[in-house]
Amino acid sequence: MHSIKMTLMYDGTDYCGWQRQPKRKSIQGEVERALSVFTREPVCVIGASRTDAGVHAAGYVCSFQTACDASLRDFSYGMNGILPRDIRVKEMEAVPDRFHARYDAQWKTYVYTIDNSAYRDPFWRRYAWHFRYPLNVDTMRRAAADYIGTHDFSAFMSSGGEAKDFTRTIYHTALEQQGHLLHFSVTGNGFLYNMVRIMAGTLVSIGNGRLPAEELPAVIASGERKRAGITAPPEGLCLKEIGYYAWQ
Amino acid sequence: MHSIKMTLMYDGTDYCGWQRQPKRKSIQGEVERALSVFTREPVCVIGASRTDAGVHAAGYVCSFQTACDASLRDFSYGMNGILPRDIRVKEMEAVPDRFHARYDAQWKTYVYTIDNSAYRDPFWRRYAWHFRYPLNVDTMRRAAADYIGTHDFSAFMSSGGEAKDFTRTIYHTALEQQGHLLHFSVTGNGFLYNMVRIMAGTLVSIGNGRLPAEELPAVIASGERKRAGITAPPEGLCLKEIGYYAWQ
Repeated sequence: MHSIKMTLMYDGTDYCGWQRQPKRKSIQGEVERALSVFTREPVCVIGASRTDAGVHAAGYVCSFQTACDASLRDFSYGMNGILPRDIRVKEMEAVPDRFHARYDAQWKTYVYTIDNSAYRDPFWRRYAWHFRYPLNVDTMRRAAADYIGTHDFSAFMSSGGEAKDFTRTIYHTALEQQGHLLHFSVTGNGFLYNMVRIMAGTLVSIGNGRLPAEELPAVIASGERKRAGITAPPEGLCLKEIGYYAWQ
Repeated sequence: MHSIKMTLMYDGTDYCGWQRQPKRKSIQGEVERALSVFTREPVCVIGASRTDAGVHAAGYVCSFQTACDASLRDFSYGMNGILPRDIRVKEMEAVPDRFHARYDAQWKTYVYTIDNSAYRDPFWRRYAWHFRYPLNVDTMRRAAADYIGTHDFSAFMSSGGEAKDFTRTIYHTALEQQGHLLHFSVTGNGFLYNMVRIMAGTLVSIGNGRLPAEELPAVIASGERKRAGITAPPEGLCLKEIGYYAWQ
């Protein structure tokens, strides 16, 4: 058997999320179907995280085992011939059997994109949250730095997650402006359910003046979900990259 | 009556092109329908050019006359409430009655995007030509400069256009590389039918080594369509901007 680490890109608009669900179109379901067609054997994949319905990925990682002896080049070309066009295999790599896409992940980077135009950019309608009211980008950028560090992020979690420990470490945040688009990127060792979307919703509250920027540390410390901003919609979120320990 | 210049953005993927056609979904048809709903009067628009099926625009210009007295701000918000999400009004401006979106255009800039990844980027699948074979970008960039100047561009024209004079002036070209994406931009005083797509197809022939770069001036001079490259597919093409004389 071969153990393979596979990096995917996908446009999540038309899917119920990563996880396989009966009678619904999921990324995992499409990937497993394509793997089974290519390898002619049933294949189950382990994903690094569960992305929600409508969320995208530019560097999702999953792993699987197969008896198929195809070269990784043929394998990924073959997969891209079978998969729908909104899911792509970007890379495949042989890994030791003990590699686990979820448990071995060291850090993840997400990017949340806000379209701050009056008209809603048609090319970004699937990939950004359209927020048409004024935003103070400098204030948002300064506030984004307050997320950095090790905190109990209970205030930034929707109910329904599986976590029992709510402490996460954020290593880096940035807010990049590109015309009417704002890209909020955040790197951390892990994220609670809807955490990035609530971080983005809270930054927008700050940028729009509804939440004073200087209150953000107190909002984090409070652990109260109702003091943070709304859960920003899924279309703006993209899982950019996942980092792993070197295993060689 | 008020004369209005309207700048549009649209994702042309799901349309038969700009021009109204019976029983088919066109940009012009959707725009006229929305204008008629908003103004409660029949409205005909004059477009700056006919973009083909599947071609996009980030700065299309059209003009129309209306008795409607709404402020241009309310007008454009209202239109964006009526239009489908893949067509957006970016700007509206009052113009003199003699303004004509097509005849008064001085220059147009198009951008043609090539996705040179092995896997076909899912986020660009509607907005780029996926060409997976190797491309020499430096050679392409140097060749792109050979388009600049006043030439008879008969070799870069599909049959079916309405032009009788095939001379056009290209003011500027550029080829920008952004990871696996190549953006070829070209500004000229006018373009023949499919001209930008044939220019892009020819650059790809050069980049891929099938056509020697040094032959491009001879290909242009020959006026022979068969010596140029293929007509690149519509999804890579975007009408970026149209310039007009100042009329104030």
